[in-house]
Amino acid sequence: MSTITLTTDFGLADWYVGAMKGVIRARAPAAQAIDLTHQVAPGNIRQGALALRCAYAYFPEGTVHVAVVDPGVGGPRPPLAARSRRFGFVGPDNGVLALALAAEGECAVRRIENPALILPKVGNTFHGRDVFAPVAAALAAGLDFAEVGPEAADWTRLPWPEPRRWAWGWAGEVVHVDRFGNALTNLPSRLIEGFAPAQVRVRLPRGRTCPVGSCYAAVAPGRAVAVPGSSGFLEVAVRDGQAAPSLGLRAGAPVRLAIGPAR
Amino acid sequence: MSTITLTTDFGLADWYVGAMKGVIRARAPAAQAIDLTHQVAPGNIRQGALALRCAYAYFPEGTVHVAVVDPGVGGPRPPLAARSRRFGFVGPDNGVLALALAAEGECAVRRIENPALILPKVGNTFHGRDVFAPVAAALAAGLDFAEVGPEAADWTRLPWPEPRRWAWGWAGEVVHVDRFGNALTNLPSRLIEGFAPAQVRVRLPRGRTCPVGSCYAAVAPGRAVAVPGSSGFLEVAVRDGQAAPSLGLRAGAPVRLAIGPAR
Amino acid sequence: MSTITLTTDFGLADWYVGAMKGVIRARAPAAQAIDLTHQVAPGNIRQGALALRCAYAYFPEGTVHVAVVDPGVGGPRPPLAARSRRFGFVGPDNGVLALALAAEGECAVRRIENPALILPKVGNTFHGRDVFAPVAAALAAGLDFAEVGPEAADWTRLPWPEPRRWAWGWAGEVVHVDRFGNALTNLPSRLIEGFAPAQVRVRLPRGRTCPVGSCYAAVAPGRAVAVPGSSGFLEVAVRDGQAAPSLGLRAGAPVRLAIGPAR
Repeated sequence: MSTITLTTDFGLADWYVGAMKGVIRARAPAAQAIDLTHQVAPGNIRQGALALRCAYAYFPEGTVHVAVVDPGVGGPRPPLAARSRRFGFVGPDNGVLALALAAEGECAVRRIENPALILPKVGNTFHGRDVFAPVAAALAAGLDFAEVGPEAADWTRLPWPEPRRWAWGWAGEVVHVDRFGNALTNLPSRLIEGFAPAQVRVRLPRGRTCPVGSCYAAVAPGRAVAVPGSSGFLEVAVRDGQAAPSLGLRAGAPVRLAIGPAR
Repeated sequence: MSTITLTTDFGLADWYVGAMKGVIRARAPAAQAIDLTHQVAPGNIRQGALALRCAYAYFPEGTVHVAVVDPGVGGPRPPLAARSRRFGFVGPDNGVLALALAAEGECAVRRIENPALILPKVGNTFHGRDVFAPVAAALAAGLDFAEVGPEAADWTRLPWPEPRRWAWGWAGEVVHVDRFGNALTNLPSRLIEGFAPAQVRVRLPRGRTCPVGSCYAAVAPGRAVAVPGSSGFLEVAVRDGQAAPSLGLRAGAPVRLAIGPAR
Repeated sequence: MSTITLTTDFGLADWYVGAMKGVIRARAPAAQAIDLTHQVAPGNIRQGALALRCAYAYFPEGTVHVAVVDPGVGGPRPPLAARSRRFGFVGPDNGVLALALAAEGECAVRRIENPALILPKVGNTFHGRDVFAPVAAALAAGLDFAEVGPEAADWTRLPWPEPRRWAWGWAGEVVHVDRFGNALTNLPSRLIEGFAPAQVRVRLPRGRTCPVGSCYAAVAPGRAVAVPGSSGFLEVAVRDGQAAPSLGLRAGAPVRLAIGPAR
């Protein structure tokens, strides 16, 4: 009944995810492997970290989350396993686990060094199959966490772009563009709590602005609106359209939340 | 052992489907979530409805089918749950369930209004995760259907383009183009029963025609043929090729089945 | 607890894979269906055969592997089921199973002819759903293999391009390009065993060469390197880049392993 989630940049065209699931199935037959996404842009650690951060907490306690966005595979970065009060995490020490671990708070982190847990012949190109999948399977099957390897003295954090307070409001940025062209920002939705809609406005690149609304339908089709999104942050959308391409929004683009008297 | 299927326009690049599966896994640990497709074009209700219609009946009795193509999320459209003799259905009241419900015949339909069934904080952008996944999980775990909410006085149908009878045969249209470039039509395969192949012919846009055959290999490579497809309708294919782009076929394109004396 | 893997060219945009999983779920409720890939290029038998070959052995004993890349569906090619000491295999007799069967060694191969195992109305376009899924489900549920149908007197092999020995080393070719743009070759990694890195060099099209390294990080970012890949063959990569498009590598492109005195 245990659960293992998979977040990678392997895509779905090759057999790589399938091979990982084979290893999991062989070593933890009672575990269920569930995909978060495998379409992280190749090598984009931050994008993988964000996907994991936004989805991991919806899984049942005891779930082991595996994230493999690993451009340095075979190099010096160590493989890690971590444990919070509720979840397990497995992945390379390059930041891909960092946003989830930061959200979990207190975590024990160990380097994967126990050769009995990994495949007999570990290559230098596919630790997802050879290292991370078998360790996740072992943890899901009940392995004592301390068996993984020694405590990690340190591990790689991933800086999260905190919005900055200004006299006129908050300066933030786009952190992700989704399939619908919606631009997720780093501006927490709670920043607009207590203000009337007419008191807040979102300033986008190229001098554009949009109102804040409670849902996409708060504006006419084709118009932009910032809504409290499903991950706790404001997201910029165009009703029945694609906000990001039409408004020049991509990861890192500045987005400002202006708060003032009703206009 | 219960089963939940998922049909959405969420794509696989973001973590949205993963988050839905997390909610299902947490609330119905014994259920299996199976993807029908997540690559419905964003907001294309008809395409989602067709995918569900063509696949749902192959699942075991008791399966709960979730369809979320929901451009009006957060707006006034109510969330629905339905039950036929064999299956459960969950999704927004915008037509995405309609073709499957019509195929099932007699169905009980209720509005989802029981707050105990859904996530504590429901936003206005992601009812797949916050409303539909937990309700599907509850139904799969054995919830009494009447607990979902009050009976729906009415719900949104989706008109199906019925082919029209003419003296020369039947006028139909393309309803879907698949990955192989095959163009599925609304012309039931039974329309050609009892006729010899030489008596029937399919007329395509731009003045082209193709024969009807029993399988793709009925014509030479590169040639077009209409075959009885896997969903009960004639489909236009090009052997070892892509019919839709080469023949100008897309959803809505007219396709005529001419029936006459052998030529 | 049994396992069925699926390898097809159906893609994920249509409901075809979902329908196969419905049939499996209905007929083998205790089996788990796991995707290897569904994004084999339409009709590319060799690509499907390679994916199956590279992933199948990571699954637990008793797994039934289904591969459906079947441009001749509905034509004369028979449907096959095979059994090795460890695994079951199901698919059309066109070579898509051949590389895995060759790797397994001794196999029993039968033609699927038992009408009790397949769907009541089998069409000519979707044997994945109508024939292969139900037979795989039956085998996973414990069907006696001999019940499938008569022994196949012969079945279609798929020639594997063996590298050729020359005075200067080995002449091979690219067999697959993956999502990262890495070019997998048919040159077994063991060919470089016993040689110092300075003694071996890989010659690519257009007069280019690259060194052999133990991992991607063996070269500077942007530089090409041949590394022992995860499937037992040398693969050509560009560190933090896409080797195949930048180096003109695609399936069939010549790749030569030059072995000589240290330079």
